[in-house]
Amino acid sequence: MYELYYWPGIQGRAEFVRLALEEAGLPYLDIAQEKNENAALRAIAHVLDGKNTTQPPFAVPVLKAGSRWIGQTANILFFLGARHGLAPRADTGSLWTLQLQLTIADLVAEIHDAHHPIAGSLYYEQQKAAARARSANLIEERLPKFLGYFDHVLARNGSGWLVGKRLSYADLSLFQVNAGLHYAFPKAMRALDATLPRVAELSERVQKRPRIAAYLNSPRRQDFNEEGIFRHYPELDKNP
Amino acid sequence: MYELYYWPGIQGRAEFVRLALEEAGLPYLDIAQEKNENAALRAIAHVLDGKNTTQPPFAVPVLKAGSRWIGQTANILFFLGARHGLAPRADTGSLWTLQLQLTIADLVAEIHDAHHPIAGSLYYEQQKAAARARSANLIEERLPKFLGYFDHVLARNGSGWLVGKRLSYADLSLFQVNAGLHYAFPKAMRALDATLPRVAELSERVQKRPRIAAYLNSPRRQDFNEEGIFRHYPELDKNP
Repeated sequence: MYELYYWPGIQGRAEFVRLALEEAGLPYLDIAQEKNENAALRAIAHVLDGKNTTQPPFAVPVLKAGSRWIGQTANILFFLGARHGLAPRADTGSLWTLQLQLTIADLVAEIHDAHHPIAGSLYYEQQKAAARARSANLIEERLPKFLGYFDHVLARNGSGWLVGKRLSYADLSLFQVNAGLHYAFPKAMRALDATLPRVAELSERVQKRPRIAAYLNSPRRQDFNEEGIFRHYPELDKNP
Repeated sequence: MYELYYWPGIQGRAEFVRLALEEAGLPYLDIAQEKNENAALRAIAHVLDGKNTTQPPFAVPVLKAGSRWIGQTANILFFLGARHGLAPRADTGSLWTLQLQLTIADLVAEIHDAHHPIAGSLYYEQQKAAARARSANLIEERLPKFLGYFDHVLARNGSGWLVGKRLSYADLSLFQVNAGLHYAFPKAMRALDATLPRVAELSERVQKRPRIAAYLNSPRRQDFNEEGIFRHYPELDKNP
């Protein structure tokens, strides 16, 4: 059984992995959901101290698969995608899925940095002026560019999914980003939605997948909050 | 023959791809080195307009391999690594190499954002105060954390290379990051170097590879400059 290591209390980057595990119907131990939070934090510290493996991860999420500890969200998804039917098998399709996931990862990093443009180790309140400027740029330039790109990819592909004729882990991740952005920037996204019909359709289609629907309605799905990647600070949200 | 699409005038993210192509001894057409700069810019625009392929890239670098257009630096390197002996074949090693490359990519994005913390579309001069704060954090916290991690990986592996007993594309990329950081932050790196003996050794070993040495001495290797990822602004450099 897979084990997922990630910080308790937030969806964070682990959520992209959870959606893939849930869609594939794979049982997994989610360390963040362990009742004893101190034990969870100790387990994460053990994974990160790097003394127990020749492949020490830089950060969580980490997926333990047998004796292997696999880090970096896109890398974990590439691994799961190949093994559990969440990406095409031939490398033309599997590398294209990875390419899309890496573009989603770039977007996720930009969304995080919109509320933390100076340092992840400082509080939001200590970088509020810079966060306001960076969020304005995110809303005006970056979100239309990234989301417009994914809408264009969906238009070119024509199946309603990003890759080929079937759902891939990149579709699950795009759903998660779209959901998170609607939580964080409801005003901005209301205005952008009209230009992104295919992204909206994809999100609805993902939400209706039986296993995803069950997951989203379960206590395993945590709420978005102001500790995670997608934070709702009303002062950062505006019309594009 | 491979074709590499990237902006003229800077090393940028294409340099990680160039180093892999050069080390593998692969001939390639480098669009950025075309004498007619307007023709190069038109060729890039053609790649990016996304109308000519069902796999449109979000950004350059893009590697054209036969009829395929492959984007995202780490994805390109994964593709080249598997085909040209720049990564282990078994997936335990190939995914670990990708994981390291993705961690290098995270570091590269942070280095870029240290001089552009608000918006890539604004000039450095328009975000100088924020750049000063973010660069201080980069030097004090992030560079020691990232580079210390890679030094630790080298220590754990013990061969002088990041993965297994042979050079991989991740080694070439770590060399490039280390070279770029010494250009951008000579003071900070002089202080950090003492704590990173294995990263320094790896960089020397990479530089001495016959094909890399020939490349670095050729006109194909562009100089670092203040348009690229690694920029030397003396006001951002300091002792950690």
